[in-house]
Amino acid sequence: ALAKSDVVILSIPVDGIIELLPAILDNISSKTTVIDVGSIKTNICKAVEDHPKRSRFVAAHPLAGTEYSGPKAALRGLYKGKYNIICEEDRSEEDALETAVGIFNHLGMRTMFMNPVDHDKHMAYVSHLSHISSFMLGQTVLDIEKDEKQIFNLASTGFESTVRLAKSSAETWVPIFQNNQKNISDSLEQYIGFLTEFKEALDSSDSNKMYKMILRSNEIKRILSGMKLNIVKLS
Amino acid sequence: ALAKSDVVILSIPVDGIIELLPAILDNISSKTTVIDVGSIKTNICKAVEDHPKRSRFVAAHPLAGTEYSGPKAALRGLYKGKYNIICEEDRSEEDALETAVGIFNHLGMRTMFMNPVDHDKHMAYVSHLSHISSFMLGQTVLDIEKDEKQIFNLASTGFESTVRLAKSSAETWVPIFQNNQKNISDSLEQYIGFLTEFKEALDSSDSNKMYKMILRSNEIKRILSGMKLNIVKLS
Repeated sequence: ALAKSDVVILSIPVDGIIELLPAILDNISSKTTVIDVGSIKTNICKAVEDHPKRSRFVAAHPLAGTEYSGPKAALRGLYKGKYNIICEEDRSEEDALETAVGIFNHLGMRTMFMNPVDHDKHMAYVSHLSHISSFMLGQTVLDIEKDEKQIFNLASTGFESTVRLAKSSAETWVPIFQNNQKNISDSLEQYIGFLTEFKEALDSSDSNKMYKMILRSNEIKRILSGMKLNIVKLS
Repeated sequence: ALAKSDVVILSIPVDGIIELLPAILDNISSKTTVIDVGSIKTNICKAVEDHPKRSRFVAAHPLAGTEYSGPKAALRGLYKGKYNIICEEDRSEEDALETAVGIFNHLGMRTMFMNPVDHDKHMAYVSHLSHISSFMLGQTVLDIEKDEKQIFNLASTGFESTVRLAKSSAETWVPIFQNNQKNISDSLEQYIGFLTEFKEALDSSDSNKMYKMILRSNEIKRILSGMKLNIVKLS
């Protein structure tokens, strides 16, 4: 089946991609394009860097998804106006790259190129850390609020969106965390550092310090509204 | 003006409520109902516990809002189907309580009663901690991602909802944090503890531990979906 396929798209947990990708390349024809859509790129690219059919492979990461997984989580229009990243584009043959970009264009995505090391570092901060932040927020609240009904009734102000990603699947995320260990560990260390600094300001009633930290974090507003404008232009 | 008002609703930062509420009660008529809508309740109730007109006051907290503040942030239907909490209902005169509940009913809210100490503890975990989690996530990402364009382009997967509350105003939130110091400090300590535990599992490649922590936090899914069903029934 692989040898007869024009395109193979690998959309499984990243440890599965790393394991299966070499064998898939072994079995394709010289016309087949293999695309992965995993959330880490360095270890995936490394797994096939010396493979004789490396040039039939395109390492992609379409930045779209929800906290749900499996076929029931399908969502019409999910990709429209979102970004797709392709790594090591110079290591893919031109026709394979064109096939891949064509598919993402068809979904309404804008493809940008990035090297895998930069990709994994950026993702640790803007995506992987958010997931850990949500998972642990979920666990903290579950642990203290033994009376579930109170979470249930009181969650309407902010908690629900902050904890949304805590619904994400362990099967998907543990392999991502393992394959981006150093970057995620660095981002977590910095995050824990800021939380500790904030707690110290709170404990010592240093309201000036709390103000300053909040005003600094408010800058995210300007940046995210820029993002929205950009996406509106695309769709 | 105060003496001629039927109803006074105090919707300002909580330190302002604590400061102004006694003077407002000094100046109202015996028919006026004063309602505050602050996000902490213990210190607000304490500020007027011995006031001769305490019974004209209703301590409320409608659980609805967005990360935006000021008149431009007004949103039609914001309160519909949401919960409102009233504290120390037995210390308000019957007609004042009826007036307040009537207003919240009119907005489509369901009012529940809770003592101020429980209110502040629950809020620390399900609302105030979410804000600190988001503020510090914003600061972490801003700090590492010196190249703003990358945040701008990559924020579509989860980061945006997790960091949404980081747009919230320091003027609103610093006084809340100050007035719920102990509960928030406890919740932060527990949150930092879980993050540190997760980081240790990551650093030692203990994937079993990471799985377990994520599966535990996934329980939030069941609880939040229960909440949604309940809100649907109300509206």
